[in-house]
Amino acid sequence: MNYPNNIKKVKTANKVITYGNRGMGLESLINESCEYYNEVDRALIYKKPTPIGISEASYNSKGRVIKNGYFKAPSTLDYNGIYKNKYIEFEAKETSNKTSFPLSNFHEHQIKYIPRVLAHGGICFIIMKINNIIYLIKGSDFISFINNNERKSIPYDWIVKNGFVIKEGYNPALNYLDVVDEVYFEGE
Amino acid sequence: MNYPNNIKKVKTANKVITYGNRGMGLESLINESCEYYNEVDRALIYKKPTPIGISEASYNSKGRVIKNGYFKAPSTLDYNGIYKNKYIEFEAKETSNKTSFPLSNFHEHQIKYIPRVLAHGGICFIIMKINNIIYLIKGSDFISFINNNERKSIPYDWIVKNGFVIKEGYNPALNYLDVVDEVYFEGE
Repeated sequence: MNYPNNIKKVKTANKVITYGNRGMGLESLINESCEYYNEVDRALIYKKPTPIGISEASYNSKGRVIKNGYFKAPSTLDYNGIYKNKYIEFEAKETSNKTSFPLSNFHEHQIKYIPRVLAHGGICFIIMKINNIIYLIKGSDFISFINNNERKSIPYDWIVKNGFVIKEGYNPALNYLDVVDEVYFEGE
Repeated sequence: MNYPNNIKKVKTANKVITYGNRGMGLESLINESCEYYNEVDRALIYKKPTPIGISEASYNSKGRVIKNGYFKAPSTLDYNGIYKNKYIEFEAKETSNKTSFPLSNFHEHQIKYIPRVLAHGGICFIIMKINNIIYLIKGSDFISFINNNERKSIPYDWIVKNGFVIKEGYNPALNYLDVVDEVYFEGE
């Protein structure tokens, strides 16, 4: 991974602390925000560890260690948890494209999974970064775009029209739950 | 892992199919049941991949591979998902002890985490196997036992009195959602 020079990274045993948002990847912004929400007990939302396959393992003084492992393709979304009594699950994706968001960023299994979460009563959305703006796209809108279009990417116009802007800030770095409140809990 | 001789195991590229429950570990029973619930669309519940740390990685034709990885201690519970519009999270543990269930089977972080899931409105419980019987223990009962006792293990008597027996069966191998219905959705 490459980090821009204006970000100071401190590696500790188990986690990486990053100071300042500028240039931070979308996923890091969200991870930090989840940690913040967790600390202030606003929500319990975690990034699921990437599923791995182990083809070789051994044992040392600390227990089982992986000697050969590979990453599996996820069939669900990256983040899930609980917020205001509701199940919540979402995916975070960014693109350097300017005019559209390529759907190749999503695994087919993930796309099929979204309507299922909705049918079971969960809150489900995508956090998309394009043209340096971060949008929340409702899962239902995302799926209806895919069902009604033969396109391989989502035009930027559509995102601007249907998305809800999530502003970057400080603590949390990305206050996406305020937008979730607006979109899913308004009037409660 | 050791499998008894009466279990036929077939290894495929990404998953292990097991025929017959006899002698199956608790976790395998639950994993199979989750898969079954998923297929018949009764619930979306997954085992969280064990979080791993990577200290060495390399790249081959398939992408990034792990050359040195270790397992981290989980701070949440093993399984989570959505069932009947509700967030659900639980842990599965078994013991060969006969008279009590050692609390050392749980990480301290996990014990602290249970009341938080409950406070956010989730369904949270432990599936415990002891003396070859599988019990669902409500998270609230489990926590109240810990708060009101100085003990390092839960006496079997207490489990029998407070637990709800989950019977083994066929498809799903462990129909724990029927017990969840009974315990959490009765009267709905």
